[in-house]
Amino acid sequence: MTSGKVTLLSAGPGDLDLLTIRAAKTLAAADVLLVDDLANADIVTLAPQARVIRVGKRGGCKSTPQAFIQRLMLRYARKGLHVVRAKGGDALLFGRAGEEIAALRDAGITVDIVNGVSSGFAAAAGLGISLTHRDHCQGVTFVTAHMQDHSEPDWRALAATGMTLAIYMGMSRIAGIAQSLLDALPATTPAAVVQHAGSSKEKRLVTTLGRLADDAAAARLGSPAVIFVGAAIGEAAEFSAQRERQGHGMAHAA
Amino acid sequence: MTSGKVTLLSAGPGDLDLLTIRAAKTLAAADVLLVDDLANADIVTLAPQARVIRVGKRGGCKSTPQAFIQRLMLRYARKGLHVVRAKGGDALLFGRAGEEIAALRDAGITVDIVNGVSSGFAAAAGLGISLTHRDHCQGVTFVTAHMQDHSEPDWRALAATGMTLAIYMGMSRIAGIAQSLLDALPATTPAAVVQHAGSSKEKRLVTTLGRLADDAAAARLGSPAVIFVGAAIGEAAEFSAQRERQGHGMAHAA
Repeated sequence: MTSGKVTLLSAGPGDLDLLTIRAAKTLAAADVLLVDDLANADIVTLAPQARVIRVGKRGGCKSTPQAFIQRLMLRYARKGLHVVRAKGGDALLFGRAGEEIAALRDAGITVDIVNGVSSGFAAAAGLGISLTHRDHCQGVTFVTAHMQDHSEPDWRALAATGMTLAIYMGMSRIAGIAQSLLDALPATTPAAVVQHAGSSKEKRLVTTLGRLADDAAAARLGSPAVIFVGAAIGEAAEFSAQRERQGHGMAHAA
Repeated sequence: MTSGKVTLLSAGPGDLDLLTIRAAKTLAAADVLLVDDLANADIVTLAPQARVIRVGKRGGCKSTPQAFIQRLMLRYARKGLHVVRAKGGDALLFGRAGEEIAALRDAGITVDIVNGVSSGFAAAAGLGISLTHRDHCQGVTFVTAHMQDHSEPDWRALAATGMTLAIYMGMSRIAGIAQSLLDALPATTPAAVVQHAGSSKEKRLVTTLGRLADDAAAARLGSPAVIFVGAAIGEAAEFSAQRERQGHGMAHAA
């Protein structure tokens, strides 16, 4: 049997030119392309030879069961084909790459990984800020609010680290997250939301932790979005004000 | 006066094909290119029109003072030129982008940001693991061990979150970091080091927190490297064993 393989490919946060050069080359050589619904649908234009299969995993929506996705990858790889599994953002941050790698490895299938830009980085670019301005913090935590057992991350422990928090998949429970963080952080702590980061649909809100849930609701922001909380996010407020003077649209707390 | 601008450009972790397509396009149009010594030196081949200025900021080595770099960017932008400031990894994670953005904004210079792949993601790809396998954790913290005031991050607070820890700029103090983390985590906690992630020089070590410092010294690993600690890193041990059977080189704790 010829040897197929699977590449877990990072489709980036939105615009196709945020893919890496390696990702574009890999797509051009793909035999089969499995596309996540968090990946830009136009990614198929970069894989003209590939049979395209759409598989969705978005929380709360109809989705293709994970086990079925894994069986598809195995089936095509065992036929000797090069299967590319495209995931939104970076394939190694959330998105169940861990389980897919384990399943493929157990089956003896070669797995390659092509990195990309996670939406949290694109969101910070949209806000015009560093994730880790050294006057404010020593790092950043990327955390999902959507947990396997429907429990919550330990928001108090996260707040205690002083890291910038970049919260993924949190929009459906933003009020509860903000309330939990308010147990440990002042209401004046800078906060922001960026929806559809890194794409032409990007929408931004710069506010404070105390106003976060109300302002996000008023601005009608929804998934997919990244929620930021932390002192380093305060740098966005000034940038936001500057943009408004220049006539760029950015939702901003009054 | 014509309007120049500055682009903070993410040069990625190593190999040039890990740059984004947008980064390559931006470099092709650059008038002036300031290159960090953490960026791949060959990046200049993508900017054939640009005047190239090398500026280094690596901790502990000779480096160009930050204030001088900021003056250079301002000077060329004010001449109406498109200045590209290339930084290793993603420009918005460590690397003082926050200060550069603030200085440029205060001077009224337009700042663009082009995202990229941070070395922590490339390091995880090298290890063949997700940063956030959902059986093990809810997220990942990227933290620098090299702080402005020479203090340490609160390792105990970081350990208490249960996040995967991706520690940058920590090789010169790896023994102290491991010791601090051992106050809060078992010696059997999976750990790894990836030096020169995402490049042909990449070197990997998979071990435990208890053996981390000794094993890193024995494998002669140094900067630049990412140190990982956390349960999700345990997935790398199996991958490492599999690679060894396949004849790929990976340093592995005996």
